[in-house]
This record gives sequence, structure tokens and C-alpha cells, in this order.
Amino acid sequence: MDGQPTERAQRLSRAAAQRLSLYLRAVAAWPADGDKIVPSRRIADAVGVSDAQVRRDLAALGHLGQRGIGYDAKELAAAIRAALGIDRGWRAVLVGVGNLGRALLKYQGFRAQGFEIVALFDADPTKVGQVVEGLTVEPAATAAARVAELGAELGVLTVPGTSAPGVADELARGGVRGILNFAPVVLKLPKHVRLVTVDVAIQLEQLAFQVQHGDGDDE
Amino acid sequence: MDGQPTERAQRLSRAAAQRLSLYLRAVAAWPADGDKIVPSRRIADAVGVSDAQVRRDLAALGHLGQRGIGYDAKELAAAIRAALGIDRGWRAVLVGVGNLGRALLKYQGFRAQGFEIVALFDADPTKVGQVVEGLTVEPAATAAARVAELGAELGVLTVPGTSAPGVADELARGGVRGILNFAPVVLKLPKHVRLVTVDVAIQLEQLAFQVQHGDGDDE
Repeated sequence: MDGQPTERAQRLSRAAAQRLSLYLRAVAAWPADGDKIVPSRRIADAVGVSDAQVRRDLAALGHLGQRGIGYDAKELAAAIRAALGIDRGWRAVLVGVGNLGRALLKYQGFRAQGFEIVALFDADPTKVGQVVEGLTVEPAATAAARVAELGAELGVLTVPGTSAPGVADELARGGVRGILNFAPVVLKLPKHVRLVTVDVAIQLEQLAFQVQHGDGDDE
Repeated sequence: MDGQPTERAQRLSRAAAQRLSLYLRAVAAWPADGDKIVPSRRIADAVGVSDAQVRRDLAALGHLGQRGIGYDAKELAAAIRAALGIDRGWRAVLVGVGNLGRALLKYQGFRAQGFEIVALFDADPTKVGQVVEGLTVEPAATAAARVAELGAELGVLTVPGTSAPGVADELARGGVRGILNFAPVVLKLPKHVRLVTVDVAIQLEQLAFQVQHGDGDDE
């Protein structure tokens, strides 16, 4: 790789980046029974987009694949990882060790993609000191200092909406560069801290919208 | 309302529908201290999009608001609900009563938007019969029959990826029209069943992508 894929990736739209994540899943699931070459058509089928879309998106990553044949699965996975910025490890902390936090900690999909949760925090003193998935829960009030100490770049927020703004500020103060927020609130963060919010009620609303109005015309 | 908002809503893009969900949050949070009028600018600030975008999106819902003044908060909320299809209740079932399932059941944000979980299912016989948030866990094998019986339209899947395709088929057979899937797999469903997938690892990847390449230019 000559660095060009990364430069190009800076111009990827968010929608394209989302599709790349899905392509990566499809490529990783590609049967390793000797066939190293995955046709764009198979990726398209697995993800539910058009063949042309896949080829266009992957062309933006640089010179990959052979016309009319397909992509080397390993090479393609590496190129997508590089474009997304997950060709290296990311250290994250998680705040809020309730049911949702525990569910995320159990989920191995993170680790496979290079994300490591290195510390847990909770504001509830009865939870502090508990060991969850091999990590000891620390007091939420120490989060900023610990983030700095651990060099964690990402924070996962599984706290109630009322606590989320304060906790997010703490994490930003500690030096995280991105927050994955599960609280149903819109957070205001310093400009250099990126935010992705997963609001389950909004996802349900979107599903209802599609059921109500959808007619199978897309997706 | 004369039915026109709904007709127009059919032409809403998914991106616009997502923004409407966010506007609805902002309008619902609008202080009720006598001021019933919410300026588009305040909605824009709360959601983090441009004023012009808000006005354009809301114009698509029909004749709402007064130029240069703002929108009646109650009327606007009702119009957005109608456009999204959540001006009525939705019955849903949940399959997979693990940590994630329990976290969702505790989350009151659903109910406030008209979504009611009416039955719980799990394949684990030791969980069947347990009462969780007021509902008794039923055997997963009975899901199709029960969905039909209860007239549930939506299914929430909080099962492992390996079980998700089979469970989704069952729910579709029972007659659900939409599935909210938390398993990290791409599900193939009959054309009339809509799908929204929440894949947390993908959200984390997107966050990493934004941290790596983002420069505060959007969001």
C-alpha cells in the first residue's frame, strides 16, 4: 500500500464509509475453501446493494481487483480496514455498567475489529469494584484522569440521558477523540471530538416509517 | 390534518426521516413555559443541522409554521409523528432476553413514542417462564404463532448472530412487517418485511473513521 488509499479515504462520504463496513463483513465471511477471489456481485448480494455501487465504492480505494474476475479477499479486507482507519488498534473506555454496558462488553465483535475496552466506570458506588468481563469497575469521577493515563481515544457511553452530557464532558477533558453515545440525547462536544449516537427509539421510528410507507423500493 | 402530510411523507428520503426523528426530540424538549412557538433556528441548533435544512424538511410536511416566527410546537410534533407513521401505537415482540434485551425493555423511550413490547421469547428453557419487566418469557419456538395471535407488527431481535436468521424467518412467518435487528448479520427477509439493523461494531468503525479522517467539517 502506498498511502494513496488513505488519502483517498479522506474524501469518502459517511454513507460510503458505512457501506465499506458492510462490505468488510461480507468479505470476512467469504468462504476460505481455497477460493481467495471474491466477485463484486457476491459482495453486492450479501449487503443488498447493486453490483455497480460496490465496484464504484471499491474503485475509490485505489487499484484493487481484476476486471471481470473479482477481488483478492485478503487484500480487499486490508484495503477497507485502512480506508476506515481500523488497520490499527483503538483503546476505548466504557461508562455505565448496566444491562446495555454488560451486553456490549460481552460482544466479541468489537475485539475482532481492533477495539479494546480498557476501563469501565460507573457512578453507582455499589458497582465500583465489581469485576465485569475481566475489568474492575472504577468510579465515574475518575474517568477523565484515567482516560489520559490509559491513552484511550474512544469512549462508549451507556449511561442514562440525564448523566450523558456531564460524562461526555469528562471524557472529552480526559482526551478522548470520539464518543459512541447510546443515551437518547444530542450531546454538544468540543469540535475535535467526534460523535456517533445510537438511539434505539429513533431506529424503531425509522422502522415504523419504512413499514408504513415502504414498498420494497430500496434496501 | 387533511391527509396530505401522509401522502407527502411517502416521498421522504430515509435521511430526511432520520432528521425528522431528531427534530421531534428537539420539539418535545421545547420548554413549555408558555412559549408554544419554536423557531426553526432552535431546532437546528439542538440537532446540529442548518436552519435552512430544518425549514426545507418541515416544508415537505405541508403548510406549517409562520414565516419569520416559527412553528407551533404541538402542531409540529403531531405533523412529524404523522409523517413518520408514529401517530398510532405499534405492537412489537422481542426475541432474546439477554443483557441487551433487558436493557431495551427497561428503556422507556420506546413507550413514549408509541411502541409497546407485548411478548418476550427466548430459546433458553431456563429463561422461559421468567418474568421480565412485567412480561413472562415464552419459548422461541412459539413465536410465529404468538405473533399472529397478538397481531404484533414489529419484531426486535436481540439474539446471537447465529440464531438471528432462523428467528427472523419465524417472525416473518408469524406476520411481522418490520424487524429491528441487533445481531451483527445481514438478514434476508421477504420483500414485504422491512429491516433496520443496529450493528454496534459498525457504529464503532464509523466513529473510528470519523476520528481518523474527520476534521469537524460536518455533523
